[in-house]
Order: sequence, then structure tokens, then C-alpha cells
Amino acid sequence: MAKKSNEYLDVSPFKIIETGFHKDRARVSESIFSLGNEYAGIRGFFEEGYSGESLQGSYFNGIYEYALKETENAYKGIVKRTHFTINSVNWVKCKILVGDEVLDLNTASIDAFHRELDMQSGLYQRSFIWHTKLGNLKICFKRLMSMMNCHEMLQQITFESDKSIPVYVSFHLDSNVLHWGKDCYWKKEEELIENEQYGIYVSTLTTHQSLFSLMQLDSEIQPFNSYTLDKEVVVEYEFIVDRKIEFTRYVINICDKLHSNTYSKLKLQAQQELNHFVQKGYTELLKENQEYYQVVWDKSDIKIVGDEKNQQGIRYCIFQLEQTYHGYAKDNNIGAKGLTGEAYSGHAFWDSETYCLPFYLFSNQEASKNLLMFRYNTLEEAKKRAIELDCEGACFPIATRNGKEGCNLWQHASLQFQPSTGVVYAIMHYMNLYEDKEFMQQYGLEIIIEVCKFLLTRGQYNSDHSGFGYFGVMGPDEFQMMVNQNTYTNFMAKKTFDYLLDLIQSHDYDVASMLKKCGCRASFINELKEASQKMILLYDDETKLFEQHEGFFKLPHVDVNQIPTSDFPLYSHWSYDRIYRNDMIKQPDVLMFMFLFSSDFTFEQKLKNYEFYEPKCIHESSLSPSIHSIFACELGKYDEALKFFEFSTRLDLDDYNCNTCEGIHTTSIAAAWMNIVYGFGGLRSDRATLQLAPTILPTWQEYSFKLVVHGSRLEVRVTQEYVELALHGMPIELKIYDKDIRLVDTYKIERQ
Amino acid sequence: MAKKSNEYLDVSPFKIIETGFHKDRARVSESIFSLGNEYAGIRGFFEEGYSGESLQGSYFNGIYEYALKETENAYKGIVKRTHFTINSVNWVKCKILVGDEVLDLNTASIDAFHRELDMQSGLYQRSFIWHTKLGNLKICFKRLMSMMNCHEMLQQITFESDKSIPVYVSFHLDSNVLHWGKDCYWKKEEELIENEQYGIYVSTLTTHQSLFSLMQLDSEIQPFNSYTLDKEVVVEYEFIVDRKIEFTRYVINICDKLHSNTYSKLKLQAQQELNHFVQKGYTELLKENQEYYQVVWDKSDIKIVGDEKNQQGIRYCIFQLEQTYHGYAKDNNIGAKGLTGEAYSGHAFWDSETYCLPFYLFSNQEASKNLLMFRYNTLEEAKKRAIELDCEGACFPIATRNGKEGCNLWQHASLQFQPSTGVVYAIMHYMNLYEDKEFMQQYGLEIIIEVCKFLLTRGQYNSDHSGFGYFGVMGPDEFQMMVNQNTYTNFMAKKTFDYLLDLIQSHDYDVASMLKKCGCRASFINELKEASQKMILLYDDETKLFEQHEGFFKLPHVDVNQIPTSDFPLYSHWSYDRIYRNDMIKQPDVLMFMFLFSSDFTFEQKLKNYEFYEPKCIHESSLSPSIHSIFACELGKYDEALKFFEFSTRLDLDDYNCNTCEGIHTTSIAAAWMNIVYGFGGLRSDRATLQLAPTILPTWQEYSFKLVVHGSRLEVRVTQEYVELALHGMPIELKIYDKDIRLVDTYKIERQ
Repeated sequence: MAKKSNEYLDVSPFKIIETGFHKDRARVSESIFSLGNEYAGIRGFFEEGYSGESLQGSYFNGIYEYALKETENAYKGIVKRTHFTINSVNWVKCKILVGDEVLDLNTASIDAFHRELDMQSGLYQRSFIWHTKLGNLKICFKRLMSMMNCHEMLQQITFESDKSIPVYVSFHLDSNVLHWGKDCYWKKEEELIENEQYGIYVSTLTTHQSLFSLMQLDSEIQPFNSYTLDKEVVVEYEFIVDRKIEFTRYVINICDKLHSNTYSKLKLQAQQELNHFVQKGYTELLKENQEYYQVVWDKSDIKIVGDEKNQQGIRYCIFQLEQTYHGYAKDNNIGAKGLTGEAYSGHAFWDSETYCLPFYLFSNQEASKNLLMFRYNTLEEAKKRAIELDCEGACFPIATRNGKEGCNLWQHASLQFQPSTGVVYAIMHYMNLYEDKEFMQQYGLEIIIEVCKFLLTRGQYNSDHSGFGYFGVMGPDEFQMMVNQNTYTNFMAKKTFDYLLDLIQSHDYDVASMLKKCGCRASFINELKEASQKMILLYDDETKLFEQHEGFFKLPHVDVNQIPTSDFPLYSHWSYDRIYRNDMIKQPDVLMFMFLFSSDFTFEQKLKNYEFYEPKCIHESSLSPSIHSIFACELGKYDEALKFFEFSTRLDLDDYNCNTCEGIHTTSIAAAWMNIVYGFGGLRSDRATLQLAPTILPTWQEYSFKLVVHGSRLEVRVTQEYVELALHGMPIELKIYDKDIRLVDTYKIERQ
Repeated sequence: MAKKSNEYLDVSPFKIIETGFHKDRARVSESIFSLGNEYAGIRGFFEEGYSGESLQGSYFNGIYEYALKETENAYKGIVKRTHFTINSVNWVKCKILVGDEVLDLNTASIDAFHRELDMQSGLYQRSFIWHTKLGNLKICFKRLMSMMNCHEMLQQITFESDKSIPVYVSFHLDSNVLHWGKDCYWKKEEELIENEQYGIYVSTLTTHQSLFSLMQLDSEIQPFNSYTLDKEVVVEYEFIVDRKIEFTRYVINICDKLHSNTYSKLKLQAQQELNHFVQKGYTELLKENQEYYQVVWDKSDIKIVGDEKNQQGIRYCIFQLEQTYHGYAKDNNIGAKGLTGEAYSGHAFWDSETYCLPFYLFSNQEASKNLLMFRYNTLEEAKKRAIELDCEGACFPIATRNGKEGCNLWQHASLQFQPSTGVVYAIMHYMNLYEDKEFMQQYGLEIIIEVCKFLLTRGQYNSDHSGFGYFGVMGPDEFQMMVNQNTYTNFMAKKTFDYLLDLIQSHDYDVASMLKKCGCRASFINELKEASQKMILLYDDETKLFEQHEGFFKLPHVDVNQIPTSDFPLYSHWSYDRIYRNDMIKQPDVLMFMFLFSSDFTFEQKLKNYEFYEPKCIHESSLSPSIHSIFACELGKYDEALKFFEFSTRLDLDDYNCNTCEGIHTTSIAAAWMNIVYGFGGLRSDRATLQLAPTILPTWQEYSFKLVVHGSRLEVRVTQEYVELALHGMPIELKIYDKDIRLVDTYKIERQ
């Protein structure tokens, strides 16, 4: 793994602090200091403008556009027009001048730069002293996005000086924003200056979504001018700083994703909300947010005693997950970069169900259900996608924001089915925890049946009909493209078939009418049974090894440790096809299904397969190390567990992959949570009864994590000597170190 | 095979004749009536303009441009900017008016339309009577491109009427031509009106090639005006047609591919050539061309008695091959559509060596050698391509005009190596016929060594080092992508290695210094030996079957006869990935190498593999049927031989593939020649001694073909009863029906 730590932030339990401006990390900091409230996100860029490297990104969950150009060589089944979450209104924009000097931290003379993000409130602030020709000016910026009323966003700017300094400030709402620095996808509908409120109303070019932004400024200073430009509204102030002067900007941003409201209706709503927001004020908003986060930490905090860096790191992960997604709306999802950048196009991947869902399953039922509802609500698109692939049923996209396939690389979009099997796995996982029969009957069953239809029609029998499987696929390991009988795909498909067959067997649900609704032919169930029975699973009982796909064991060997660091990332340094014809793997594939269905496999099977596949893995995906760490914990390989864990909580804070500048690795930080809870905590949730088998790193005094289990709150505290369980709520049954217990309140056991 | 005949042309032994204007075939006719002289080609479009479906294409061999946009997702080794032969000056353009009526055959009232192409001179002519409001006007257009002086191109227009009709005619040289109907790649350098000569000098946007066009008009009528527009020069005439009025336009087109000449130098050259051309005149030019084609037919004619359609068809194939390429220059090559359209970008493919070369080998040594010289002259580009693929040596492009890879689909450009092995095969084939040791020492050896280096570094040993082969490749059968151990690729690579090893063994050449020049390491020869010895060739001695690639025999079966006709072409109707995961094949793969190295295989091996693979082949490539027909002849399956031969000679004349409108299938018509000579004639030339084993279709009275063999001319005449050989030149040794003979003058044997 060619990863190294690039530390520059202060260590603090609940804060991210940058002391002194690290210009060489300007874009990295923009990502790290991103704010979000699921509805929207904004990068920690400098509101006054910055002439150095910067990505001035502001994103709204579900506001997206289509590519201006069609994909070249778009054969049937290849996505012609991809889509992506677009850069949207810059609602913090301002310009600050002292005399003829424009504030620009790339060139200005400053000191006492301090920036911090408070994870107990979501308050972001930045302050410094600017040495102007006319004297020193202390400026402090604050930003806050409401976690309770998602439209409410706030900025505060304070000026102080020991001399009388003339200052010019303008506040802008600006939709002249470029996506990828190239194209603006917004067009103006209306601009508004009315009763000291300033607004712009813009809509997207082809998706016809709209965004209403309205602001009001609170200050003792009165503006001397205001005006509108194309897609921009500006308010200007001039004043002398001879005391503390403060400006509070209250902004209401309302998305109309379906463009279903009139301008006048949106205007009225925004005005009402803005009046209420101004009335509430900064202090009250801060208090609301503090209360919100109090609840979050109460149910989700992980405490690590004896490791301040990982303590800060894991809290940052939890904080960013909460900012990105907490189930506020059914049509939101979790982009690979959250709402912190344009890379990965704001798309949700299989990461949502496979890497992120567990965090929500154990803290926020509504959020976990809504992640599934996103898939239910985009089922029609998945059905269309299946048709494009000449199949029946539903094929969930590899990358999407609106339910349509958003990846125009056919080698991924047409060959990878872990999104589809992952959705069914997620339903099963959700059902393990919540036994939500209504969900299953109303939504789950239909998804499962449609996915089964897809998997049945995409699968093929081999020439003599002795085996069923998948030809021409790519499993999670994206370094093995277009292979036959990828064991992950086959195993997950079999599990999907079997799950539906079990549901039919259970008689808990009205499957018959759902099969009818889905238009399944009479032979469907028998077809499923036969396909499941004949599913090709390449397994050698002697060596206990699963073969990743047909022919994998014969592939030329590459010693991954001999690959020079300068070759990474391989996609940039190796000829494209060269990546695909060795026994090197990018991320867990066999180990992945062995993790997901952990209880299906013996210790020996896990050991053998880990020892075979781990040395072949280069972890080019940031999702990879945590899964390996979880295995290493279970297999008692603590050095390796630590090695793979090392950077998981601080992947972004210390910019291990050197690409945090593009946005934070939102789905990977979910894997950091899993690394602690599933890895060190030894949690297993692939069966109805939970299992725990905690271990602890020798350098940690103790750690604890919290889970919501079947509605009850469980706190697991692990020291070097013992494990302590504390339950608040109804008793639960679980297994700890292979011992079945019924936990009523507390339980203590020696650590094994 | 979803192919059907769409006949509309008259049958005639040496002419292509259209009687009556077939408007629905306008674009097809444009392709069929294309003229060319290797240096340039022009589609048979209507010079006066046509408001219906039309592709007004004029192309110069080696005049090309790069795509304006880069390829999306261009990972390493993927072509960023493709290139293509561009549409160039329209040198036949004119406008014809009678009163306010503009001549446009899409709307005009005409009769007595007659169009013909004379394959004994290359004269194209078209005539009709135009019913204008002012009376009937007979117009006749002629076109001729000199086969002796490739810059000379001629147009003649004759007007006749039985009434006095006022006519306006303008003659243009126009470089405002669009490529693919979208972009113009030409910019103006100079325009010229001087001494009754009219010229334009233009250059390409990024390749900086230039084209000088100069014309002079000969007529009793004097122009009333002339002027230049952007990239266009125009000469205007007005006159009364009360007798036969004739205009002869003499054009000199000179390409300056490397832009190495000054304007004044080119101008002087063009003026001199044009003066000489005008002096020579139409009649002399026609006579020169007739003499040229007399020689062509003398050495290459195929006569079929008792089958007028195939007689016409095969002569059309030979004529078009001659027009497209006859070895005039070392930097020319054979585009898949010749110089008759923009499809396939004017690119040369492996077709040049594998399908076209045999025709030239047996008729024109210079041409066959120059096809190889094209590869030698682009060896440096092939070496750069190998580096892009992280390999050593030389990888010849799958599609190219300038030697660089021109295909930006990685799945073809990075995975197909038949161009590289095909070049070495072609050298071997050339050497069988000509024993050109000087060529081998100077050029051949270097190519072979560089291709061996590439094949050695692209190949890999399997995990236990027991076998060497190619992982992640696509053989000639493009319906099996990214497979391991494609037997075609492995077999051809082994043959390539062995050929070099044999050359070393022979001591006929100074291989050592060439190895040194190519920078081969000391172990190179041993590495070649080991790779050859360990080459994986999937062959079952019991069934005599070669497996097309690892796992092919296990692939799901598709009954190709059950695929509805409406599904073709599959690329347009099947999801892209679906094409690649069945036992259906697009074109011969195992049968291809068994054809190329025919003498290496037994009758039984051929029979078994033909019977296994033929039913799986859908012949989506127009190159496919002829190879199957050749096998069927050898295997005595005459019905099948006829079935696959049926449309080969008339593929374009009868528009079997419904896409002749895009241009003629130049490389496929070379396969039609092979179908007769290798198929019915039973020629085999993969060893030093030629073999013949003629068969004859029951419907043919007799047929004959001519070959140049080792410098002597051999005519093979086949009747239902016997085979007659007639030799002019030095005696040759050959095998006929397994009988070795030394042919001195004539030889007659009963047909078997």
C-alpha cells in the first residue's frame, strides 16, 4: 500500500484545527473543512475568493445535470449521457477590500491564522490578522448549516482593529458557478431585491430543477448599494472599523427538484422561512445544532482511550457521515465524496449499502430504511437498465444520482452486479436488525424479485447445462475484468435466489401476489431453484480455497511488493489492459463475500483464503484495507490488523491517498467505523443473532462503541482485561465469544 | 447470414451499367461508380450537385487529420486522438442552369439516364436528357483518372440539343468540404487565376499537409467570369446550345504530404504538368489508360464461362483492387473502404496483409513489397505503440493511416495482435514467392525481431511457469473479448518465434548484427525458444479440435440460426456485453490460422474444426464467408462452398450488406479473389512449393485464372473434365492434386 501520512492538523478530541495557514494544503483543507446537512454541502473554501488552487464547491443533494456531450461509441447498453451532481450557488461569496487592497490569502500578509471545525455543533470558523497598508485588521468568519431545518444556512463575518480602517465588503449570492471548472449548468429565472432581502432563482439547463436562494444581512451597518447581475445578486457596504463590526448573513436555500412550484410560491416560502430564521438568530441556531449533535454522539460515539489521533479520526468519520446523510429524505443518498467535491460525480455506488449502511443500521433505523427506499424509488430505472442490457427484472446502476446508470464505461456499468446483489443483501441485513415485515411486504419483496429476475436472465448455463453462472462479468475486484464465474457474483446471486426461496418457504409474506405483480412466469420459482442448485462455486475442499474466477489460479503472478511506489495509482501508470491480466487484485473479492456472509464460513476457510488473497491485494480502493483489518482481527493477526487500520480513521485528515483535495472519502470513512466495530469489536450481523468478539490494540487503554440494537441502546466497552456491555432498553439476545447470552442491563466478561 | 441480393445493374463482362436512374440507390451507386488511381479516389457523385442522399467524397491516399476532440477516459495505452483520411477538394464540381432551372437529378425531369464504368479503361460516363422548360438538353459527363500519371484527372461535359437552349455552367475547385458532413479540415493558403489556369492551394489544420489543385478548361466557349471565394475558385460560362458543345476540364492535383515544398515550387510543378496534360488531351489519356488496363487483365484476369454475374463481379473486384492500390508508392495502403468513403476512416487493417496481399503477391511484386514497406516505414510508430502498452518491440496498429494506432476503442487496439503477427506472416508469404533476400536482410528481419520482442514481452507465463501464452486478448473473432490463450494468437506467435529461429538457423542472413541493432539482450534467443516450446495450444488429440480459447468449450450455446434477422447487425441490436458471452463467433478464428498455415494440418483436422466452428459463425464480418468457402472446397462440401461464395464477387454490386452506400468493401473483394483462386483453384502458398487442387462449380462450364509465380506467368484453366496449366517464363515446380510436377510450358490433368 503506497500510502503515507501527511499530518498538519492539531489533534483534539472533538475539533479539527488548523493553526497557521497551510497554503500547500489549501485544497485539502477545503475538503476537510466541508460543512453539510445532507440537504446541501459546502467546501471550506475562502468566501472572499482565493487566487491559488481552489475548488469553490457548493452542492445540493439531488440537484444534478446531464453531460453536454454524448458518450463516444455508445453501443447498445452503454450509457449515452451520464449525469452528475452539479456545483451550485455560492452562498458565502463576499469581497473584502481595504483601500485598494483586495483580501486574498494567496497574496495577503497575514498572521494568527486559525481555523477550526467543531464536531459538537458543526460550527466552522476561521480567523486571522490581515496586515494592510492602512493597519491590522482582524477578521473572523463563521459558517453554520442547520441540522434541524435544512434550508437554513448562516455566515458571520466580524471585523476588529486597533486603528480606524476603512473597509469595503460585498455579499453575493452567485450562481455563475462552473462545474469541473468548465461549464455552468444554471440559467437565470428571477432575481429579487425586496424588503432588505436579496434573492436569485435559477434553474438547471436540461433537468429543469430549480434553486431559490434568499438572504438577509444583519448588521449595525447599512448597505450603500445593491444590484443584480446575471445569476448574481450583490449587497455592498463601506464602513470604518474602529470597533468590532459584525455581519450575519442568513440564507435560505430551497431546491425544487421536480420544478413543481411556481416562483411566487417558492418566494413566499423562502421569505417566511427567512423571517423566521432571522428572528431565531445565530445563537439559537448554534444551540439547536449543539443539541442535535449531542444526540448523535450519545448514540454513535466511539471512545478510544490512549490514542488521541484515532480518537479524533473516528469522530471525524462519524461527524462527516452524519453531515452527509442521516436519512432526512428518501431521495437522498451518499456520494462517494459526499457533498464535498465533484469527483465521482456525486454518484452513489454499491458503497452505500455495503459499506455505509451498517453505520446507520446500528444508529438510525430511519436513515437505513431510507437508503433502501432510494433503491425502491428508483426501481423503475433499474428495470429500464435491465432491458437495456437485454435482460429482465432490475439491474441497479454501478453509479447513480437519479436511479439511471451514470457510468459510461461499459466495462463497469455492464459487467458489475454487486450493486444489485448488494441491495438485496442490505434488505436482509436490515431485516436481521429490524424485522420490518411491512417494509418487506411493501417494498423489499418487489426489489428482491426483480433482482432475481435480472440475475436469472443475465446468468447462463454452460454448454452442457451442468452449471449456472455469470459469463463476462467483473466482481468487486476491478482488476479482473470480463471473467467467467466470478465467485463473488455467483455466490451473491445464489444467496439472493435462496433468500427469496426462503421468504417463499416462510409463509410470512404474500409472495404470490408480488410475483404476479412482477409478471413472473409460472416456472420462475423452479428456475430459481435450479439456478441456485447448479450455481458454479469454484471451491477446492482440500485447500479450502475459493477461486476468484475461472482461471484465476493459472494467472501470471505479480509480486505486488515489487511494484515501485511511483507506479501508483496503476490506472495512471500502467497500460490499461496490463492491469487486468495478473493475479494481482485491487480490493477484496473472495474475502468480500466471506465477510458479508461471515457466519457461513469456518475459521479455517477464512484463514486459508485470507492468506492466499491478502498478499495479492494492492488496496487501490480505499474501501479495501478495512475489510482486511477485520479479517486479521478475527484471525488473530493483530499486527496486520493494525497495519490495515492505521490510516482508516485519518484517511482524509492526513491525506493518505494524496487526493483529499478532490473531496473526502465519505464511503471509506464508513469503512473506518466498520473497522472498529466489526474488526476490533468483532461484531457480526449477517444472521438474526448478533455476535461480538472484541479484541483491543495493545496501545489502546480502552475503547467503547455504541449500537442501537433492535431498538435498544448497547454500549460495548473494551479494555485490555475485559469487555463490558451496558444495555438501555428491552433485553436482547446475542453471542459473545461464542457464548449465547440474554443481555438485560450489564454484562462483563474477560477479554479473549 | 442475413444477406440478400439487391440487384439493379446490367450484367456485362467488362462494364458496370446503370440503365435508368435508380434514385433509391443514389448513394450506393456513388460508391460503386467510384474512380481511383491509388493516389486519389472520387465517389461517383453527381458533379452538378444533388439535393437527395449523397456523400460527395474525394479522398487522397495519405491525406489525413486528427480528431478535434480527445477520447473520453483515455487511460494509459488508449488512443487520445484518432486520425482519419479526410474528404478533400471537389475537383469535378459544377453548376448547370437553363434559365432559372438548376440541374438537380433529385427533382429534374429526365430520361434516357445511362451510366457506365468501363473496366478496360477506367472511364466513367453518365448521360441523360433533361426536359427543361426551354427544351430538351442532352448532357453527358465523363471522368477519367490517369493510371500512369496519378496527378492527372479529367472531366468532360457535353451538351447537345435539337433546339437553341441558353445554358449557364460554372466549374469549381472547392475545398469547402465537410468530413462526415460535419467539420472542414482545410484552410486556405492561396488562390490563383493566371493564364486561363485556376488553382487553389489549401492545407490541413493540424497535420499541415497541403494540396495544390490546378485546372484548365478546354472549350470553344470562352468564360465570361471567374473569381475566387474562400477555398474555392470558380469559372463561369454562358452560351447557347444549338450544336454539340463540349468542355474538357484538365485537373492536376498534387499532394504535399510533408508540406516540404514552397507554394511557388508546387505552382511551377502543377503548371508544367497541367500544360503537358492539356497538350496530351482526352483521347491520348484514354488510350494510355486502356493500355494500362490491358496489362492488368493480361496478368490478372479471371474468366468464368457460364456465369455472367460472377464473371462481371470478379472483374469488378480486380478492377477496384487495382484502382485502390497497385504499389505506386511505399506510403500508401489499402483502406477497408478503399478511397470510396469515410467509414473506417480510410484506415488500413490487418486485412491488407492477410486478405489483400495474396492478390498482389501473384500479380505485382512491387505492390506486394510496398505493402510490406508501409509497415517497415511505420516501424518506429509501432515501437512507440509497444511502449504505450508497457511492452518492448513493435506492436502494429489495428487501424491506421499514418502508422499510429487510429482505433480509440481499447478493447480492440490493446487486445488484438493479428496485425503484428499478420505482418510477419506476410513477410513469410512474400519470401515463399520471391525469395527476396535483400528485402529480408534490409527490412524483413528487423520487423520480425521487433514483433518477436513485442510478443515476448506481451506474453506471460502462467502461475507455475509451465505454459506461455497471451492473457487478456481478442483474436480475429471479435465476439470473444479479453480471453486467455486465444489459440489463433498463441499459434501465430509461436509461428512468428519459430520463423525467426529458423532464419537464425539458416545462416542465410546476418541476424546477429540485426539483433544488436534492435538492442536484444543476450538471452533473447533462448527466451524465444522457451516461449515457443511452452506456448499453450489448446488442442484435443482425440477430437482433433482446437479450443478457440481457454473456456470456449464451456461457453453457453447460442443457436445462431435461431437469431432473428432483425437482430442483425448484432452490434446495433444486442447489448454490447451480450455479444461476448456465448459460443457464437463473428468470423473465423481457429479456421483462420488453419487456413493461413493450411499445410500444417491434416484433412481430418480441417474437417473436424470446420464442422465444429462453422455452425457457430454468424459471418458478421464480410471477410468471413470466403474463408469458409475455401475450407468447404477443400473438404468437398460443394454446396456450402457455393453458399459462402454466392455473394462474395457481387457483395457491393448487389449491396448484400445494405451498406455499400458508405463505400465499397475493398478488402472483402480481395477475399472474393482468394475465394476463387484458393477455394475453387485450391491454391496453397504457405510453403515454398505451390499447390493446386482445382474444383469447379457444376454450373460453370469453365474458368481460368492467372498468377505470376516466381516471375513466370501461369494460367490455370479448369473445366468440368480437366485442368490445363500454361506457363510463360522459367519453369516452376508445383504440386497439383498431390502430384509434384515441374512445369515447363503446358500441362493437362484430369480434374479430381
